[in-house]
Amino acid sequence: MAEQVVRVGIVGFGTVGAGVARLLIEESDSIAARTGLRLELACVVDIDTQSDRPVRLPEGVLTTDLERLLNDDSIQIGVETVGGTEAAKEVQLKMLAAGKHVVTANKALLAEFGNELYRAAHKNNRCIAFEATCAGGIPIVSAIRSGLTANNIEAMYGIVNGTCNYILSSMTAKGESFADALAEAQSKGYAEADPTLDISGVDSAHKLAILASIAFGCEIALEDIFVEGIDSISKDDIRYGGEMGYCLKLLAIGHKDEVDKISLRVHPSFIGKDSSLARVDGPFNAISIFGSAVGQVMFYGRGAGMMPTASAVVADIIDVALGNSATTFRHLHMRPRNEAQELIEKIDDCTSRFYIRLMAKDEPGVVASYSKILGDHMISISGALQHEGRGPDNTVPVVIVTHTTQQKNMTGALEDLAKLDVISGEPVCIRIVDIPEDKD
Amino acid sequence: MAEQVVRVGIVGFGTVGAGVARLLIEESDSIAARTGLRLELACVVDIDTQSDRPVRLPEGVLTTDLERLLNDDSIQIGVETVGGTEAAKEVQLKMLAAGKHVVTANKALLAEFGNELYRAAHKNNRCIAFEATCAGGIPIVSAIRSGLTANNIEAMYGIVNGTCNYILSSMTAKGESFADALAEAQSKGYAEADPTLDISGVDSAHKLAILASIAFGCEIALEDIFVEGIDSISKDDIRYGGEMGYCLKLLAIGHKDEVDKISLRVHPSFIGKDSSLARVDGPFNAISIFGSAVGQVMFYGRGAGMMPTASAVVADIIDVALGNSATTFRHLHMRPRNEAQELIEKIDDCTSRFYIRLMAKDEPGVVASYSKILGDHMISISGALQHEGRGPDNTVPVVIVTHTTQQKNMTGALEDLAKLDVISGEPVCIRIVDIPEDKD
Repeated sequence: MAEQVVRVGIVGFGTVGAGVARLLIEESDSIAARTGLRLELACVVDIDTQSDRPVRLPEGVLTTDLERLLNDDSIQIGVETVGGTEAAKEVQLKMLAAGKHVVTANKALLAEFGNELYRAAHKNNRCIAFEATCAGGIPIVSAIRSGLTANNIEAMYGIVNGTCNYILSSMTAKGESFADALAEAQSKGYAEADPTLDISGVDSAHKLAILASIAFGCEIALEDIFVEGIDSISKDDIRYGGEMGYCLKLLAIGHKDEVDKISLRVHPSFIGKDSSLARVDGPFNAISIFGSAVGQVMFYGRGAGMMPTASAVVADIIDVALGNSATTFRHLHMRPRNEAQELIEKIDDCTSRFYIRLMAKDEPGVVASYSKILGDHMISISGALQHEGRGPDNTVPVVIVTHTTQQKNMTGALEDLAKLDVISGEPVCIRIVDIPEDKD
Repeated sequence: MAEQVVRVGIVGFGTVGAGVARLLIEESDSIAARTGLRLELACVVDIDTQSDRPVRLPEGVLTTDLERLLNDDSIQIGVETVGGTEAAKEVQLKMLAAGKHVVTANKALLAEFGNELYRAAHKNNRCIAFEATCAGGIPIVSAIRSGLTANNIEAMYGIVNGTCNYILSSMTAKGESFADALAEAQSKGYAEADPTLDISGVDSAHKLAILASIAFGCEIALEDIFVEGIDSISKDDIRYGGEMGYCLKLLAIGHKDEVDKISLRVHPSFIGKDSSLARVDGPFNAISIFGSAVGQVMFYGRGAGMMPTASAVVADIIDVALGNSATTFRHLHMRPRNEAQELIEKIDDCTSRFYIRLMAKDEPGVVASYSKILGDHMISISGALQHEGRGPDNTVPVVIVTHTTQQKNMTGALEDLAKLDVISGEPVCIRIVDIPEDKD
């Protein structure tokens, strides 16, 4: 069969852009042998043409001129690896208007402006392919949109931020403080110099917005997602939770109940030590999906990094070149924003079990005081742990695990607990997530 | 958008056929809402129209007449869930000749006659979609063909037979004998009354043939695969291996070395207790794939069962209806059989570490005898374990773990060991597989 030539332009020559360029150059022959598609790197656009990159481009490929890409009708596919939202959005819109299909790894952009960009793509009869936006090289977007499409997806639980997972894994395994674990992650290249986007949970929320929109067939907005980061997690709570059989992970959770109410949240989560996700350590990502027919399926791999992300971008380029992406994109029906909004459960109504730690003064009446408050808020205690030994101000840590209750009950109880004389400082509260493991 | 009607016929109304019919009937509305495709079950063909099935078909859908499906031009897709090879092959060829695309869960058929069937499909300008042939509901076929297509796939290690994994998990967790664990698996519905195909490793080889053909882009024949089953595994070896840090799994292995030689084998494998696959228990399947760009990715889920398998069949139906399957199928380039054959490594040349157990008479000179034989065959010992206590005929078990050596060296050594006077019975030999875990 004759090879079909596919010409590709890249905008943004950072880490991911360089990885994509490298794959396109180095794997061109083997991709042609496997698929019959000859991928050609037509140009790479970046304002910085001087810095060293881990790939050597052929003469004349690197340019500062976006117009060169836009005006070259032989280029069918534009890869946007600019990052950020403002400039990147403009690049994508210009590429779509110029008749290019778009492939992107930009999760922040799609999470914030995806609905608008998808509409622009539909209007121009082009597609946006975004496998690389979620969980790096793990083909999770195509799994949800194609492989599991016969299923009503009931829930997804994901470890989708490698930085946070690295930090929490270190804190768990070595008893390190958050600050030490973060510094270690930075020294190993698993955390940025400014780690805010990762440790605040916002990066995970970006990915959840994208995954939930395709899994539940709804236009999701970032503000639909409740977000809590890991920056205030103490090693003591990881240890106490561990003693009670739990492991702490930052989870991105999408859950649909029987009446189709959708709960979307990112927060530190105690999960059973035996659950599949508890065993995902270090910088790795994993996503468990529960489908009505398939039961539990889990996907595991590197959620970031130059070549894993480039692997997903180039897979999308091939899928676009074959014409499959455009078909899938055209058939991607989503409930519009106004309808979808009605389905989103408010965090106050969300139910969970909870882990609470109080620093209690070591004097009579403490148990009675906190028990009464929890009871008053309709919260029932399922377990408690009080170590001997002193904390600051002559206090001892009291750890309480509750039965399932609504968030609003817990919020009320925490306010009252904080006011107790026998309690020092703010109570710590971490959600316990019972992942419904599919067992025999 | 107007709904696009897709009419589907099913041949074979057994477990999988019934599951597919149920999904098509029960999920028709939600699939239409998500994809714009209205899947219609036009007919179900089976010689048995009387038995009870776990789905109620609309009046007139069930028929004994294959011609009704073949001659109905409104039916674009034929699902073959007949099972077996002879009749099923004829059904697929007839459906292709009648201009239907084929969707199948029949791994035995594709492993044995896939190359012939694929050629027939290409000739008729139709496709065969076969996600359901491997690992049930886990979308592993599409992951390899689409999601990971930018990668040169270097290796895959799969637990792809739930029956064997259930049996080995029970033997490991409860110290049960093979016979007891098999009986338990049968009582729970995880093993057939005649379990030969599963426990012999042949079912795993079927799946490996299909996965390896798409991962390595080669026409693979069943005889390319070395197969050893689990039926002679003793609980003692699972225990001794466990003491040395290993867990026993039946692995399907496809491995390509630096000079593109491909090793394809299914055999009981001791793997490190910490490796991801060691934690896959019970009837579950998991496949670890190593790609040149993506590193390690792992896929986990139910590898069999009515609804998981139906999930994969219906995903294929949707993919065929969208036109994507046909495109992917057309672009699936495979090296023809004569070229591929040159690349397959003979099992004798295959290298591995090995676990050996000898029942040695408790007398002087035993260590010297077996050490000399191993040394003569260029095999170096990396560890040994000798428990006190008696086996049959006044023997003690001696467990030896070797460094890497070629299979032919080991085969020669085992022959010589069996001849030793101080050894009772045949030596037991199990391969140790070092899965190159992708760590930080």
